[in-house]
Amino acid sequence: MNVKKKLALGVDIGGSNTAFGLVDQFGELVFESAIPTKNYNQASKLVDAIFAMIQQSGYLNQLIGIGVGAPNGNYYTGSIEFAPNLSWKGIIPLAKLFQEKFKLKTVLTNDANAAALGEMIFGVAKNYQHFVTITLGTGLGSGVVANSKLLYGKDGLAGEFGHIRVVPNGRTCGCGRTGCLETYVSSTGVVRSIQELNHTSKENSILLKIENPSSLDVSNAAQAGDDFAKEIIEFTAQVLGSALADFSCFSNPEAYVLFGGLANLGETFSERVKFHLEENILNIYKDKVNIVISTLQGQNAAILGASALVFEDLKT
Amino acid sequence: MNVKKKLALGVDIGGSNTAFGLVDQFGELVFESAIPTKNYNQASKLVDAIFAMIQQSGYLNQLIGIGVGAPNGNYYTGSIEFAPNLSWKGIIPLAKLFQEKFKLKTVLTNDANAAALGEMIFGVAKNYQHFVTITLGTGLGSGVVANSKLLYGKDGLAGEFGHIRVVPNGRTCGCGRTGCLETYVSSTGVVRSIQELNHTSKENSILLKIENPSSLDVSNAAQAGDDFAKEIIEFTAQVLGSALADFSCFSNPEAYVLFGGLANLGETFSERVKFHLEENILNIYKDKVNIVISTLQGQNAAILGASALVFEDLKT
Repeated sequence: MNVKKKLALGVDIGGSNTAFGLVDQFGELVFESAIPTKNYNQASKLVDAIFAMIQQSGYLNQLIGIGVGAPNGNYYTGSIEFAPNLSWKGIIPLAKLFQEKFKLKTVLTNDANAAALGEMIFGVAKNYQHFVTITLGTGLGSGVVANSKLLYGKDGLAGEFGHIRVVPNGRTCGCGRTGCLETYVSSTGVVRSIQELNHTSKENSILLKIENPSSLDVSNAAQAGDDFAKEIIEFTAQVLGSALADFSCFSNPEAYVLFGGLANLGETFSERVKFHLEENILNIYKDKVNIVISTLQGQNAAILGASALVFEDLKT
Repeated sequence: MNVKKKLALGVDIGGSNTAFGLVDQFGELVFESAIPTKNYNQASKLVDAIFAMIQQSGYLNQLIGIGVGAPNGNYYTGSIEFAPNLSWKGIIPLAKLFQEKFKLKTVLTNDANAAALGEMIFGVAKNYQHFVTITLGTGLGSGVVANSKLLYGKDGLAGEFGHIRVVPNGRTCGCGRTGCLETYVSSTGVVRSIQELNHTSKENSILLKIENPSSLDVSNAAQAGDDFAKEIIEFTAQVLGSALADFSCFSNPEAYVLFGGLANLGETFSERVKFHLEENILNIYKDKVNIVISTLQGQNAAILGASALVFEDLKT
């Protein structure tokens, strides 16, 4: 008899793209896809689109539940609350929308929390009990794990390190405040650095010749020996390393796991983050914390993490 | 038959004074005392002095265990590690010293963690599952409680909010870095503010006529209508409120419990802290977090908290 696999739908809502996939209990991804979040002016239309694609995949009747990772996702209420990087404003009851459309239980959390769960179950954080995932996408998200458990806090909104202010009267942020970490350390932050930073190497940089250069362009330029691109990577690593040094005063983690676009700046970036972390950290934490780059494929980790919410939920 | 009560010795090591007391399982304090920490150039001599006083108290044979709260106290190793506000330098195996002298099991943690435990079991945090204790003494300590459990972290050193840097290139700190929160928000920080702040009201202030004014002098002067003293309280509340706003991004607590010297600046101080917190906080956390002043007597709370370590430990 050919028993059909039970599958969880893992959905990762990002500022630019929404990635989703069907995952079995062993972490095997049997189907995946992605659509541009900004094309859907209402969340319910995005849910409809995902439903249609899952229906077309032929796997709909094998689904047992849905896990969603979303920016400013609240685990307790199942809503997205005031996400500065999404076009949907206010409070969006996304878990309810999925639940009604699919007729299946839906668990929602912060996208970075979902990524942390993915790293803990399938990725580089398998052996860590205390770590923080830093997701470097359009914004900067974080998921805090202490004693092998996600930290949710009073309202399910713990772990918003991207909105800790690191520069007084610094860059304006989508949240309405200034100097937030994510205005410097994120793909959009890097693009702002290209515009705002001044350095002797700037005028000869290949980056000024590219229309709308991205963080990937910065990485490529640096590898090709462009000094201004290297300067931007160094500046970004310095802001992040210095911030992570202070964040260690909170949960005394054994590692920070870097994940997403900027993490692809690679070993050089993570080594410079580690250097600036050690330069700035309180002596009791010195030489005790690792900077690790996620080894899971970018969007897969978030899908796997979101799907893990379903399997975790079934256990309880 | 008169059964003698079982008692825990709770010890609170502070930069200025070490307070200790004997506590029963209902939180009743049957004996207490305090000695100046700085008079003991070695930790073992302080342990000897406490032993002698407990012996004199006549309660020694009723002791069942010892709980110690200490700055930079490491729960896992039982040591004080590089405490900037103590004259004992490096790593001090304090739990071992108590254990050998008293022949009783000793549990040690961060003084602020002990205070948090005291608030949770006997104080204003009885109904909170997610809160942070901010202890305002010679330095600034913090204890983070999430899901009714103390957060210890990888090395038992979680919760050092006093050493999160809030002012770039700010005041020098005993830890060797600059701009740490406790260089502004602590009794020593307030004394530095008297010296460093300039304000039109300064030259007529009563504080300039007092030799070595303390934070208590500031409180008294403000209550007597001294504008410069009010200015210092406002400045201190602003630095703290703004910092607590950002710290909410860590653990999304329902309350901050203020404890120790500066908390005695009273309602005005906590109201101004709350004002600046709300002015600076990310919108998802707005109007959700309380600023509460400890209702336990200053040193009693720390002793009760330290003693609670013994009763908690017996449960496991």
